[in-house]
Amino acid sequence: MTEIELMGKKAKSAAVVLATARNMKNTALNAIADILIDNTDEILSENAIDLAGAKAADISDAFIDRLTLTRNSIAAMAEGVRKVATLDDPIEKVISGATLPNGLEIKKVRVPLGVIGIIYESRPNVTADAAALCLKAGNAIILRGGKESVRSNKCIANLMRKAVKSVGLPEDSIQFISDTSRESATELMRLKALDVLIPRGGAGLINSVVENARVPIIQTGVGNCHIYVDKTCDMEMAVDIVNNAKTSKPSVCNALETLLVHKDIAPVFLPKLKERLDRKNVEIRGCDITRAILGDSVVPATEEDWSTEFLDYILAVRVVPSFNVALEHIATYSSGHSEAIITDSYENAKKFTLNVDSAAVYVNASTRFTDGGEFGLGAEVGISTQKLHARGPMGINDLTSTKFIIYGTGQVR
Amino acid sequence: MTEIELMGKKAKSAAVVLATARNMKNTALNAIADILIDNTDEILSENAIDLAGAKAADISDAFIDRLTLTRNSIAAMAEGVRKVATLDDPIEKVISGATLPNGLEIKKVRVPLGVIGIIYESRPNVTADAAALCLKAGNAIILRGGKESVRSNKCIANLMRKAVKSVGLPEDSIQFISDTSRESATELMRLKALDVLIPRGGAGLINSVVENARVPIIQTGVGNCHIYVDKTCDMEMAVDIVNNAKTSKPSVCNALETLLVHKDIAPVFLPKLKERLDRKNVEIRGCDITRAILGDSVVPATEEDWSTEFLDYILAVRVVPSFNVALEHIATYSSGHSEAIITDSYENAKKFTLNVDSAAVYVNASTRFTDGGEFGLGAEVGISTQKLHARGPMGINDLTSTKFIIYGTGQVR
Repeated sequence: MTEIELMGKKAKSAAVVLATARNMKNTALNAIADILIDNTDEILSENAIDLAGAKAADISDAFIDRLTLTRNSIAAMAEGVRKVATLDDPIEKVISGATLPNGLEIKKVRVPLGVIGIIYESRPNVTADAAALCLKAGNAIILRGGKESVRSNKCIANLMRKAVKSVGLPEDSIQFISDTSRESATELMRLKALDVLIPRGGAGLINSVVENARVPIIQTGVGNCHIYVDKTCDMEMAVDIVNNAKTSKPSVCNALETLLVHKDIAPVFLPKLKERLDRKNVEIRGCDITRAILGDSVVPATEEDWSTEFLDYILAVRVVPSFNVALEHIATYSSGHSEAIITDSYENAKKFTLNVDSAAVYVNASTRFTDGGEFGLGAEVGISTQKLHARGPMGINDLTSTKFIIYGTGQVR
Repeated sequence: MTEIELMGKKAKSAAVVLATARNMKNTALNAIADILIDNTDEILSENAIDLAGAKAADISDAFIDRLTLTRNSIAAMAEGVRKVATLDDPIEKVISGATLPNGLEIKKVRVPLGVIGIIYESRPNVTADAAALCLKAGNAIILRGGKESVRSNKCIANLMRKAVKSVGLPEDSIQFISDTSRESATELMRLKALDVLIPRGGAGLINSVVENARVPIIQTGVGNCHIYVDKTCDMEMAVDIVNNAKTSKPSVCNALETLLVHKDIAPVFLPKLKERLDRKNVEIRGCDITRAILGDSVVPATEEDWSTEFLDYILAVRVVPSFNVALEHIATYSSGHSEAIITDSYENAKKFTLNVDSAAVYVNASTRFTDGGEFGLGAEVGISTQKLHARGPMGINDLTSTKFIIYGTGQVR
């Protein structure tokens, strides 16, 4: 048995205990929050070593930013864990039930998924966020983070294990894979003990998981998001929303990547928009008509740009001859995350929400709202871009399964 | 673009129409029922050719039985399709909703999964059953059946396509892959256009799909089901239930495979049970204690027997020293389908339903009830043995996904 197989076995045993741990899960979560606060200095010093390594490896500022922990971010992490403790416990809730004509009493109840694997990149806060939510839903968790944040992650995971153990739950409820080799990732993707594997990271990671996993997975987070600015709309509102969706936090999955503009409004709208985006130095990559309107300073958009999640101050812009062409463009290039229409047409608003096949479809609002917290789910473990099991921001219910329990008095069929 | 890729593309286009087809889906289903009845002779003559081929290939009686269509079974198939038409349409139902503090109106609505692949073995009735349920839930479907039933399947699929077209929906809502090579199966398992692939068949097929699929799948149907006969129980009831679960239809996934008996009751219970099972010539493969009680005519059970889904008149029997050992045995060997306890102990009944981690857990009833029809789901597309998305008998809601629709008035974040 390899080390990771052994972790799977231990996780399965821990999951049996967690499935009926009820209130003790909250006790454990509060103990986790306490231990993170009490050991802030240790976490920061491990994080400093990770940061030194990353800086020496000449890694991008955005990456360093995601990797960096502070006294405040650790406090926020602990607060997040406490908030998870206050969520309603979904486990053992009866979802439906009936007494059948033959007298069988049947009920469908919510149960934990069992063992959840999380494979993630450089954000150490995922370690605590994901573990807390999985634990609250009664699941054991096996974490594997990126190599740049391994010391921070391991430190946080070990503290959490101590906390869980201190309240009398199995420490193996939370396990962390320190081996950051490609082999350990592949092994986790094929670990039969996993009831689900959730990758959290960029398109490269997601694709690798889709290709290599032999366990059920939930694809998350790749967001090639679109906004369509319709022929009739409040142009100020459109500028505000596009600016917000593109520039408020370009590195996240719900940020805008491609803007589609109806040809009738484009000549007036695009110059207004450009003026606003110029303040943030957004690079526009435009179709021919966009360039005819905005001038040659606009980079020509390539076919590849329409499919690209820039995650940066770059916006692809296409002027479309009709609403239907906008729908077709979205159907062709969208990753199914979040799309918005800015319109004053009731008919088009209705058609857009009905026809656009994405996890979140907006009328007259920024795509940036696609988030578990914003949607009122309490906390999220990622944003699913697949249609199976969960779609859009995943809350605690999405970390559960169900089972049928049937009480009889000797019935046979 | 290969032929199967082209099917995927056509299915995606059809799915867009089906997503908002509403009542027309019922019109199509009734047209399908009509066309199946009207063309019974043609279906039977194609089925006769399949049967002749299978008989020449010296295939088992059970297999021939599954492959055989009759005037009655075609009528039942058509009736099943009509029944699906009467089910509530799950699509566009609002599951939850709220107006957020910032004024965003958010609702979560049920939408089709999109494109569903079904890969199945020799039962031609799956062609109509699966297509009807997928269509009702607004999904396009790509079917690939086994080579032994290819003429029957193709005939049924082509009739259904005609019917769907006749009411004005896209005929590519239902597509059938006539190529029964291993390559066509593998290609379907990797077809990006699929939102989900559902295999229906034996363990070999399921394992091949788990290994080869690169699209989301739902594992179905492998049932290594257990019954535990507790120390205190109604022994007559226990004999009835075990006999029913093993012998009423041994070839199906909810049939009993391994019986666990508490040591205190075994010496009296096992001889009574054997007497009943002998009437159906059930082969018992027993542990040492079972053989000590029932005699050497009982075949010794091997380690492999505990993991085997016999699907035949064979029963593995183990005498256990305690309730907890029974729970451990089930945790080790069960495929997570259906398990039952026969007991008069309230405490053990409660503990069994809480601790056994299977899709359906019974007290004092036969495992044979695990079925969409029996559970009141109207119709089923298989029985999921995984925990993601759906677990146990899958009804029409399990063929859907959700999306968030958000109405704003210019909100930015």
